[in-house]
Amino acid sequence: MGRIWNFSAGPAAMPEGVLRELGADLLDLEGTGIGILEHSHRQPPFDRVLAGALDCCRRLGEIPETHEILFVPGGATLQFALIPLNLLPDGGVADYPDTDIWTAKAIVEARDAVPSAKIAVPFEGKRCAYDHVPSDAECPASTGAAYMHYCSNNTVHGTQYRHPPRCADGGVLINDASSEIFSRPVDWAAHGLVYASAQKNLGVAGMSIIIVRRDLLQRAPRKLPSMFSYAAHAKAGSRINTPPTFAIHALWRMCQWMLREGGVAEMERRTHARARLVQHAIDASDGFYTPLGHAACRSLINASFRLPTAQLDDRFWRDAARDGIDGLAGHREAGGIRASMYNSCPLSAVEALVAFMREFKRTNG
Amino acid sequence: MGRIWNFSAGPAAMPEGVLRELGADLLDLEGTGIGILEHSHRQPPFDRVLAGALDCCRRLGEIPETHEILFVPGGATLQFALIPLNLLPDGGVADYPDTDIWTAKAIVEARDAVPSAKIAVPFEGKRCAYDHVPSDAECPASTGAAYMHYCSNNTVHGTQYRHPPRCADGGVLINDASSEIFSRPVDWAAHGLVYASAQKNLGVAGMSIIIVRRDLLQRAPRKLPSMFSYAAHAKAGSRINTPPTFAIHALWRMCQWMLREGGVAEMERRTHARARLVQHAIDASDGFYTPLGHAACRSLINASFRLPTAQLDDRFWRDAARDGIDGLAGHREAGGIRASMYNSCPLSAVEALVAFMREFKRTNG
Repeated sequence: MGRIWNFSAGPAAMPEGVLRELGADLLDLEGTGIGILEHSHRQPPFDRVLAGALDCCRRLGEIPETHEILFVPGGATLQFALIPLNLLPDGGVADYPDTDIWTAKAIVEARDAVPSAKIAVPFEGKRCAYDHVPSDAECPASTGAAYMHYCSNNTVHGTQYRHPPRCADGGVLINDASSEIFSRPVDWAAHGLVYASAQKNLGVAGMSIIIVRRDLLQRAPRKLPSMFSYAAHAKAGSRINTPPTFAIHALWRMCQWMLREGGVAEMERRTHARARLVQHAIDASDGFYTPLGHAACRSLINASFRLPTAQLDDRFWRDAARDGIDGLAGHREAGGIRASMYNSCPLSAVEALVAFMREFKRTNG
Repeated sequence: MGRIWNFSAGPAAMPEGVLRELGADLLDLEGTGIGILEHSHRQPPFDRVLAGALDCCRRLGEIPETHEILFVPGGATLQFALIPLNLLPDGGVADYPDTDIWTAKAIVEARDAVPSAKIAVPFEGKRCAYDHVPSDAECPASTGAAYMHYCSNNTVHGTQYRHPPRCADGGVLINDASSEIFSRPVDWAAHGLVYASAQKNLGVAGMSIIIVRRDLLQRAPRKLPSMFSYAAHAKAGSRINTPPTFAIHALWRMCQWMLREGGVAEMERRTHARARLVQHAIDASDGFYTPLGHAACRSLINASFRLPTAQLDDRFWRDAARDGIDGLAGHREAGGIRASMYNSCPLSAVEALVAFMREFKRTNG
C-alpha cells in the first residue's frame, strides 16, 4: 500500500525523505559501518550527532546563548513533574492556567510532585468547555508566583495563544510548546523555559527538548536524583547516562529538513496556508462543521470541529480513513473530529482533506 | 564501507536482519501505509505492536503471570531513582551490594531519591577493585531490609553472579539485568523485580523494561507523579502518555529474532560459546592479557582485561578499530580493554577478535 495522508495528533506524519535517511542510518551511520542504534553514546560518531542536533536546534529556533538546550528521555507528562521539582520551592506558588486536557494533567502532576506548594489555576477553562484561551485580564498572575506554566497550542480543543500570557513580576514564563515548536518564532526574552515532546515536530516519541535559561539551572530548590535534575542534565551535556540516541538523531534530521525547507519563517507560512484552507472549509459549510474554539484563538495547527451529530462525526473519520485520510478521530475525551497539521504535513494532504469535507457534506449534509 | 564487528558496551550491535526490518517499518508498518514513528499510540496498529512486544517478552523470558511487564521511558539510571521511590518507605532500609561502577551510581541515586531511608552497602567492591562479586557470606542482608538491589552482570569490570544473592527474610530481590536479560533463565520466584535498559539486548536506547511482581505494585509507600509510579504505568498498560513507540517496536523485533533463533536456551548456549573463545585467548596468553575479574565470577558477556601497559591497551583497541573491530576501549573509569558480547554478537565476530588478539600478542608481546 502507498503512503497515506496522516492527520494523527502525535506521533505524527514525518517527511518521507527524512524517513528514508533514517532507514539508511539504521544500517550505517555516515560511513562508519555501524548503525545509529548501535553506536556508543560516548564515541565521535554520536558526538557529531549530538553536536549537530544542538547546533541545528539553536539555528532553527534562533535560541540565544542565554538558554541551554537539553534532551531528556520521556515525554511532556514527565516534564509536568520535573518542572515543579526543578523550579518550585516547598511552600511556593505557581500559576497554571488550564486551557485544555493537557494543562489539566500538568496541574495534577505538579501537585503530586511538590505537595507543599500551591498550584494556582488563574483561568479554569473547563468552565467554558475549553473554547478559548484567556486574555491577560482573565488570567491574573498570583503575586510572588515562581512561574506561570501555559500551553501555547492546545491540541484537543484546537485553541492557540496569539501572544504569550503575562506572568507574575519576577516570575518565570514556561511554555509547553509540544505541538507548535518551530512553527513560529519564540520571544526568548519573555520565556524562562520552553519544552516540547519530540513526537509532533521533532520525530521520535519518548524524548523531550527542554530549552531553559541558564541562570534558572543554578536555582534548583532541592536536591534531586540526577535524572530528575535539569541542572544535572545540563552539566552532563544531556549524557548523564545513555541518552535516547536515535531520538536525538531523528530530531537532528528533522531540524536539518526544516532548515533546508526555509526554517521557522517558512514553517510559519505553511502553517497559515494549511489553516486557511481547513478553516475556510469549516466556515463555508453553513454550520455543518462547527469549530470547538472561538475564532479569535482557533489553533492554526489542530483543527478541532464537530459535525451535527456524534454519529456523523464517527462516519466522517471512518469514511475518510477508507479514502486514505487517517487519524481524524477527535481525542477520546473530547470527541468530534481533529485534523493535526504539524510542520511535516504537506499542503496536498490538507487539499485532500478539504475535498473530502466538501464531498462528505454534499452526501451527508 | 561494509558493516564492521562492533563490541560496544551499549548501545550495541544488532542483527542486520532486524535493522532491515526496522528500516522497512519506518516507511510502512505492516501494510498500513504509515511508518512506525508516525503511528498514533492509541490506534490498532500500535495496539498490535505493544501486545506483540508483551507477548514475545513473556514467552521468551518465561515470565509467569505473577509478574507484570512495563515499558518505561529512560534508561537504568532513571530506575535507580524510581525503584526506591516505589519500594522503599521513608525511614526504611535497603541493601545495595556494590559490585561495579553502576551499582555505585545506583546507591547515590537511591540516597537522593529517599533521603530518609538507609541505603546499606553489605559488600563494598571498591575495596577489591571490583574484582569479584560476593558470596552470600560476604554480603549479609540487613534485618528488615525492604529489598536487596544487585546487578547480575557487571559490564565495567567484567564480573557476573552465578546465582542470585540472598536478600533479607521478607525482603524483595531486585536485579539490574540490563546487560544480560534473556541471555540465561531467571528464577522468577526469587525475584520481585528485574529490570533492564533496552540498548544492549533489546534494541533502542532510552527505554527500560521493568518486570515486577504484581503484589508489589499495590504497596507503593508514597504518592508519586504518574510517570514515577510503576503502579501507574501498570494501570495504564505502559501508556500513561505517548510511550517510546519505536523502542517498544524494536524490542518486539529483537524478541521475535531471539525466539526465532531458539530462545533463551540458544542465547545461553551462544553466550557460553563466545565466552569460551575469548577466555581461552586470555588464559593461553601467558599473562599478556590479564582479566580484571576472578575466574570464578568472570562475566560471560563482558570480557574485561588489560595488557602489560596502558600504552599497549591503547594501541590494542586503536589497531583493532583499524582492522574493523570496534568498541574495545575499556570504560573511561576502569581503562583496559572490554569486549561486550550481547545476544546479537555473532560467533564470527569473536573469532575475528581472538585472531586479532593472537596476532597482536605475536607482534607486541
